[in-house]
This record gives sequence, structure tokens and C-alpha cells, in this order.
Amino acid sequence: MPPPPNHRFHEITFYVRYFETDAMRIVHHANYLAYCEEGRSAYSRAIGANYADFEKAGFFLAVSEVNLRYLSPALYGQQVTVRVWVEEVKSRRIVFGYEIFNPADGTMHVTGVTRHICITQDGKVTRIPEDWVERWSPNPNLS
Amino acid sequence: MPPPPNHRFHEITFYVRYFETDAMRIVHHANYLAYCEEGRSAYSRAIGANYADFEKAGFFLAVSEVNLRYLSPALYGQQVTVRVWVEEVKSRRIVFGYEIFNPADGTMHVTGVTRHICITQDGKVTRIPEDWVERWSPNPNLS
Amino acid sequence: MPPPPNHRFHEITFYVRYFETDAMRIVHHANYLAYCEEGRSAYSRAIGANYADFEKAGFFLAVSEVNLRYLSPALYGQQVTVRVWVEEVKSRRIVFGYEIFNPADGTMHVTGVTRHICITQDGKVTRIPEDWVERWSPNPNLS
Amino acid sequence: MPPPPNHRFHEITFYVRYFETDAMRIVHHANYLAYCEEGRSAYSRAIGANYADFEKAGFFLAVSEVNLRYLSPALYGQQVTVRVWVEEVKSRRIVFGYEIFNPADGTMHVTGVTRHICITQDGKVTRIPEDWVERWSPNPNLS
Repeated sequence: MPPPPNHRFHEITFYVRYFETDAMRIVHHANYLAYCEEGRSAYSRAIGANYADFEKAGFFLAVSEVNLRYLSPALYGQQVTVRVWVEEVKSRRIVFGYEIFNPADGTMHVTGVTRHICITQDGKVTRIPEDWVERWSPNPNLS
Repeated sequence: MPPPPNHRFHEITFYVRYFETDAMRIVHHANYLAYCEEGRSAYSRAIGANYADFEKAGFFLAVSEVNLRYLSPALYGQQVTVRVWVEEVKSRRIVFGYEIFNPADGTMHVTGVTRHICITQDGKVTRIPEDWVERWSPNPNLS
Repeated sequence: MPPPPNHRFHEITFYVRYFETDAMRIVHHANYLAYCEEGRSAYSRAIGANYADFEKAGFFLAVSEVNLRYLSPALYGQQVTVRVWVEEVKSRRIVFGYEIFNPADGTMHVTGVTRHICITQDGKVTRIPEDWVERWSPNPNLS
Repeated sequence: MPPPPNHRFHEITFYVRYFETDAMRIVHHANYLAYCEEGRSAYSRAIGANYADFEKAGFFLAVSEVNLRYLSPALYGQQVTVRVWVEEVKSRRIVFGYEIFNPADGTMHVTGVTRHICITQDGKVTRIPEDWVERWSPNPNLS
């Protein structure tokens, strides 16, 4: 699921933390979900749609499905880049796509998508506020 | 992907840990991958195929894909049951299926599958040793 | 800081999870804090002082200090036992003590204490309700 | 344990990750150990003493003790700065000091120390190689 041509995305780069490795001496597969999540957070900050503000307004994006494919392991001592984009945004749902790779040589570690539904604090499914739909629409003003 | 009729599975039940919750006051979605993994470990111990021994023999089951669906959140204070079974085992690959639910009332939290390939310590894909294929085959001697 | 003679304590035993290991192939040192916390939770459940109910009543035990000593590493494939007791409980503070060891051979992995203060939902320090002070007092009805 | 006058230290700043929060809606206390560890990693990279290389040379810095004090909680949506320095380095031991604070307003979240011993791959205590002792000595060429 590569980002389509002309598709806008956001990237963040950081070092693998030792805490994120496991006894195979690689990044544990669950931690890529935290990488994806931090990618979403950074993406939202970059387009002026800070997720912390979304929650303060009483909304949450609950994760409804994750699908990750693991192509090669990331190791302590290297950096990873998380490239993130919006695949699709609808009135109550949003889908993010990801590529996580080694910025030093381009080796792809993980690709995937996460699906989310908008809920209120008491867990009811609700519409994403219109201004947030616009911010998260697939062509924000990103390089 | 419910376990097929007559399919053998294994279950473990434990309390949600506070550490596993997040600011939505629910179990963070990444932690269900740790629950699935602990379910696989328990399954393997139950059928006499201790995964720690598998690694001591020089083999690893690397995760190649995960697909989880989140139906309702689990909370601190409750227990979760992980039901795990082998969907399919081939010469170099194995697929596990999962249901994670609240044993107090049967509420389903998460369903999913994880796909694995057998590798050696230097990361090369290899055949799963025959005796382990047999142990992990879909109808082990489990209730 | 071994439990004093005649001191009441609680123990829980569980398998190390693969997710908790790191690239040294041992349990990562941060995860023992999650073990201690689950020990506290189990202790509280055992004495009828469910911490989930404490929070529902509007109180929280915020961690104010941790001090752990690491004596030998725990590994995937083994179980750990968390022995937990109350060192001291005062009107606004409580101190828990811990020993984490391998139940198969008694090898001590970690000893330590965690200090907590009672706060309200808005973060103000407050008195621990009297009935909870009694439940957590150092000689509950535990073996 | 503030850094002594003229003491050299290193700082890294990053956003709190949602995964690191808990049901109290604050950063879970165990995760500050991961912040400290990433601070040590960054410190070592900054002085040309990459910890990944230390491990490749067959040495490990095992954690022997941690002592953290929690002064105020960090929240999702903010950044944290980890200030890290070497308190003391001896032939087989090294002690790191930390302050973790909010760079936006200087609020101190956590202060503490971690103690480490140098071990070989088979877990035996050994001397820290002399060139690494020099790199980690308390006045490296840091601002």
C-alpha cells in the first residue's frame, strides 16, 4: 500500500530505543504500533490538527483494525523513519497508511494501515467534526 | 475468523495490568499483540512445544504479518481470556488465530491472526523442524 | 529490605512474556515496575481492597518514588514470583516492598520499594480514606 | 541530585507518546526508565561512545539499581527534555544522573540516578575498557 502519486504525507525520524528491542535482538513487533501512533501524532501536529486538542474537545479516534506487514527487522543503534498519510477519511472513520524504513539505506521494515472510528468520551460512535475532516483530508498542505 | 468446529484451542486468563492502559482509560491497542504472544507461548507450553526450547535449538518464529480487529475495549480491573489456535502450519510458515474476550460476560474485545516464518539466528528463512510441525498441527491434544 | 518476621505478604506467579525481554535477552529493567504494580494490584484484590474500586471512588495512588535493586536477570521461559507487602501506611502515604524471584530455584532477581501519595482526580494530595488505610495496614489477613 | 556546577551534561527533547500514558492520563512511571535509557543512548552518541558499538565489542552495562523521584506528571501533547550526565565512573561501575522536565515551562517531572555494572556476554562482571572510561568520564566535551 504505497502512498499514491502526488499524495501528501508526513515523516518523522527517531532512534530505536533499547526498551523497544526483544530477545531476538530486534524491535519487538508490537512497538511498530507505537511508532505508527507517534507518526499519526506528528502528522496531526504538522497540519495544525493536534490530536491532544481533539481529545480536549471530547472526541477520540478509537482503533478499530490494524494490519501490519513485517519485511525486515529494525535494530537498536539505527534510526527509523515513519512515513504516514491519510488513506481515507469519512464522516465517522479514518484510515492511516504507513511505511517504516531505515533512513540510512531505505530498507523497508514495516508497511501497514490502521483504521479508526470517532467516538465520544462515553464510547458512542459519532461524526468527526467537519473542520477536523478537512484537516485530515488526504491532501493537506504537506510536502 | 472463529475457531472452526472441532478445532482444538488453548485458553489463558489473566488480569489486565495498569501499565497496559492508556489515557483513553482502556488497554492500549498495541498491548493486545503482547496478549496474543503470551497466548502462543501458553499454547506451546500446553502441547509440550515450549517456544523457549525452539529458540535454544536455533530457530525463531519471526512475525511476518498481524491483523487485529478491535470490537470493544478491555479495562483495568477485569480479566481477559486469550483463546489461541493454529490456523495453518506449513513447512516454513505458521498462522495463529485469536479471540480475546472478557471471561466474566463473554464480551469480545479483539479477534485476529498473526503470521510467522521460521528463521535461523542469522535471519535466513528455513523449514520448521518436522517434530515441531507435528506439535503445532491444528489438532493437538487440547480440549 | 526483606519482609520482617511475622509480616504478612502476598505472592503472585506468572510467566515472563517475550515482549518484556530486550536485546540483552533478559527482562528489561523497566518491566519490573510493571511486575511490582501487578503485585500491588493482586495484593489489593486479595485483601478485598480492589484498586479499581479505589479509583472509582475518586482516589489515586500516585507513585512518588521507586527504588529497585537488580540482583540477577530473569529470562523468557521462566516464571517469576512477585512477593509484595505494605512497609508503611500513613494518612496520605503508603510504601510497598517487593521481592521478585524465580519460584523454581529461589534465585532473587529484584528487590525494592515504591512510595505513593494519595491524590484526587485533579491531582491534589489528600488523605487515604480510613477504611482503605485499615485494609492496607501491614498485617492484613494474608498468609 | 542536580548536576554540579561546571558539570557537563547532554539533553534530548521529544514528544510524549500516547502509548506511554496510562489510565491516570499521565505518563506511566515505568516509562521514565525508558526516557532515561534513551537519554543515556543520546549522551553516548553525542560524545562518540555509541552504546551499540560497546555491545558489539562484547560488553554490556547491566542496570544494578534505579532510584527515581516523581515530582509532577508529564502528559500526552507535551514534550519532555531528558538532561543526563555521568555522576561517577569507576573501573567496573558507572552512575548516571537525570532530570526530566517540560521544556515549555521548566516544570520538573522526574529526577533520579541509575547504577550500572559492566558485564560480558556470559554475565561476568568485568572492567570497562579504558577508552570507554575516558569517554564516559564526568567532563566530556559537551555543552
